[in-house]
Amino acid sequence: MKFKTAEILCVGTEILIGDITNTNASFISRRLADMGISQYRQSVVGDNPERLRDAILESLSRCDLLIMTGGLGPTYDDLTKETAAKVMGRTLVPDEKSMKRIVEYFEKSGREMCENNEKQAYMPEGCIIFENNNGTAPGCCIEDEELGKAIIMMPGPPNEMIPMWKESVEKYLADKTTVKMYSENVNLFGICESELEHMLLDLMLNSTNPTLAPYCKEGEVRVRVTASHQSLDECKRMCDEMVEKIKNSPVGKYVYGTDVDLVETLVNTLREKKLKIATAESCTGGMIASMITSVSGSSDVFDGSVVSYANRIKCDIIGVEESTLERFGAVSSAVARQMSEGIRQKIGADIGIGVTGIAGPTGGSDEKPVGVVFISISTPNNTSVKRCFFDGNRDKVRRLTAVNAIGLALEEIRSIK
Amino acid sequence: MKFKTAEILCVGTEILIGDITNTNASFISRRLADMGISQYRQSVVGDNPERLRDAILESLSRCDLLIMTGGLGPTYDDLTKETAAKVMGRTLVPDEKSMKRIVEYFEKSGREMCENNEKQAYMPEGCIIFENNNGTAPGCCIEDEELGKAIIMMPGPPNEMIPMWKESVEKYLADKTTVKMYSENVNLFGICESELEHMLLDLMLNSTNPTLAPYCKEGEVRVRVTASHQSLDECKRMCDEMVEKIKNSPVGKYVYGTDVDLVETLVNTLREKKLKIATAESCTGGMIASMITSVSGSSDVFDGSVVSYANRIKCDIIGVEESTLERFGAVSSAVARQMSEGIRQKIGADIGIGVTGIAGPTGGSDEKPVGVVFISISTPNNTSVKRCFFDGNRDKVRRLTAVNAIGLALEEIRSIK
Repeated sequence: MKFKTAEILCVGTEILIGDITNTNASFISRRLADMGISQYRQSVVGDNPERLRDAILESLSRCDLLIMTGGLGPTYDDLTKETAAKVMGRTLVPDEKSMKRIVEYFEKSGREMCENNEKQAYMPEGCIIFENNNGTAPGCCIEDEELGKAIIMMPGPPNEMIPMWKESVEKYLADKTTVKMYSENVNLFGICESELEHMLLDLMLNSTNPTLAPYCKEGEVRVRVTASHQSLDECKRMCDEMVEKIKNSPVGKYVYGTDVDLVETLVNTLREKKLKIATAESCTGGMIASMITSVSGSSDVFDGSVVSYANRIKCDIIGVEESTLERFGAVSSAVARQMSEGIRQKIGADIGIGVTGIAGPTGGSDEKPVGVVFISISTPNNTSVKRCFFDGNRDKVRRLTAVNAIGLALEEIRSIK
Repeated sequence: MKFKTAEILCVGTEILIGDITNTNASFISRRLADMGISQYRQSVVGDNPERLRDAILESLSRCDLLIMTGGLGPTYDDLTKETAAKVMGRTLVPDEKSMKRIVEYFEKSGREMCENNEKQAYMPEGCIIFENNNGTAPGCCIEDEELGKAIIMMPGPPNEMIPMWKESVEKYLADKTTVKMYSENVNLFGICESELEHMLLDLMLNSTNPTLAPYCKEGEVRVRVTASHQSLDECKRMCDEMVEKIKNSPVGKYVYGTDVDLVETLVNTLREKKLKIATAESCTGGMIASMITSVSGSSDVFDGSVVSYANRIKCDIIGVEESTLERFGAVSSAVARQMSEGIRQKIGADIGIGVTGIAGPTGGSDEKPVGVVFISISTPNNTSVKRCFFDGNRDKVRRLTAVNAIGLALEEIRSIK
């Protein structure tokens, strides 16, 4: 079976009443585009059996592959599997393996399993089952070889759907497309999207395959290079060639990797150089440490951090001098410097990050408005401090501070011989 | 004309290829729900005239009011107005006032006006025009009194659509609804969705107005109570009455508030009781501190925290005894207890949170598999430790640990007289 066209149908009254934004549709759309599967329509429908059935039938009349999310929960108004099975002429039968996984899930979590959780192990007969490693609802695919059509169902919560897509669905679809598409992302730090576009414009306009598309990610940017060809190897070769062109262009100095994550790159670079890092955080309140430790294996390069919201903690634990605080104030270059140097001492780390700033919405002044942040990086060779200004609400200021601190630390660490 | 049911149809290939997430749909959905206009389906379609026409006809066959966004731009593939007008049997005619506004817009912004911008001032004859104060594309509404149906069109960029909605569309719709709707969310911690449903099932099945719907949020759940009535005051009264019923039911003990956030509730409760909190974090790596400090004004109740990834930091800074680490291991009830007690001392806080666990994917054993976490809460009265198991990947284990630590701390703090 080969799929040329797909539709996405997301099930859930909570989307229709605006309680949640449909990020599942954008995630799946992007992945389908990458695979060269066209999508001309996407829909949302509530937890109502008749309207759900109508929506499924309409979509199937227009496309080869219907991808559904949501409505696989344990409660009586979760009807996706039941309705899709009926449309495809299947009955639901208990799946032993799924049942075992659900029972184990509850045993492990020490919670009591309700009777209605058993419903989640009833699957359309003859379907392909996608295991759920982050919840109780398995996903599945019902194929109709005769019609050349199929329905894929996945759970609604993105933290269950996305891993299921990556672990199972993508593999299932891999040999079911007619043209291959392949993308590589060039990751850059220290340049904004409009500068990047300006510097790459000629290359962007003159290249149709691969195509180049810049994307802005909070605090960093990436260029997505996408090639299409019948041979995946040829796609890859075309992408690699274009990535080299970008690296050798004037934007090359901002490139920190391809298809990598900024924090993972920091952790890997530290590991390669046998260095350890520690953070002293005021306005970010632990967010930088939390980002570093989100990387598996970060314990190789990270022993600990201190969140110093109060001035007393900055002095007592990190070793900032009281006179510096009095003279320059907590949000100052001098305090950021002493934080990054002090935390290296306190934790016994090679690299120290110190951040202090005004995340808002209150606490700003004319001289230091909300959004002013000092980021200091201390290495065995030197200590740098950068005064930054981030526009946005409290959450955005904090996140931009954290990403920039990690980017600046990476730059400093790379320059260490 | 009165509208009972609506559909949203968003036009744009950029949504179908996953380049942007459809936040317009969630914004409009929420507003429609508040106005008591039911929505049973929403769709996205690309910039293609036939598929766009089909989608409009299908939606209009199902609902009274079709709300469209996108496709009002100046380029040749922007076809929303043209297609909707044709479906409703109207021609496009130049609108002088809109033309004047577009010319003025370009004069003010100092940019040169292209010929195709004139196209944006051609409007369906007899339509109601919604002015655009943030861009060049006016919105409009075509009413068909005979059919009792209407199509509203707004520009796609949210920074144009949202102000247009608030300034014009909402006013247009105000006297065209038959019933008002009102919702309140009851927030619960310490109970899972299926347990909640089990305990509330009778109430849920026997109540049609207000309706009750449980939703799962990572680590917590909520029940949405929605009432509809011609009077908004009566809606509110009906919701309040139902919320009281829920609070007085067996699930009442898990309720921590209505329409509130768990972390904000923690910060507010600490402030009311004049208490300060500090965290000692191993597996969460600063995430709990970061969550607490995400709340504006958290400096009233939070001075600092320590992230202790390495055992050395647990001993040197937090004061965990080396003998305890040797005897029980870093991931143990005894170490969690000493972390929560030690951090209170170190930071000088009233409440201490200590967490230690195995976030994975490596580091698990038969006795302590990945996902085992010890959460300890220390108060001036006593110290509690809970052994938890969270199923999921590294990220999920960490997030569930953080949410549960905050929920458990809130429970303990509430019990302090």
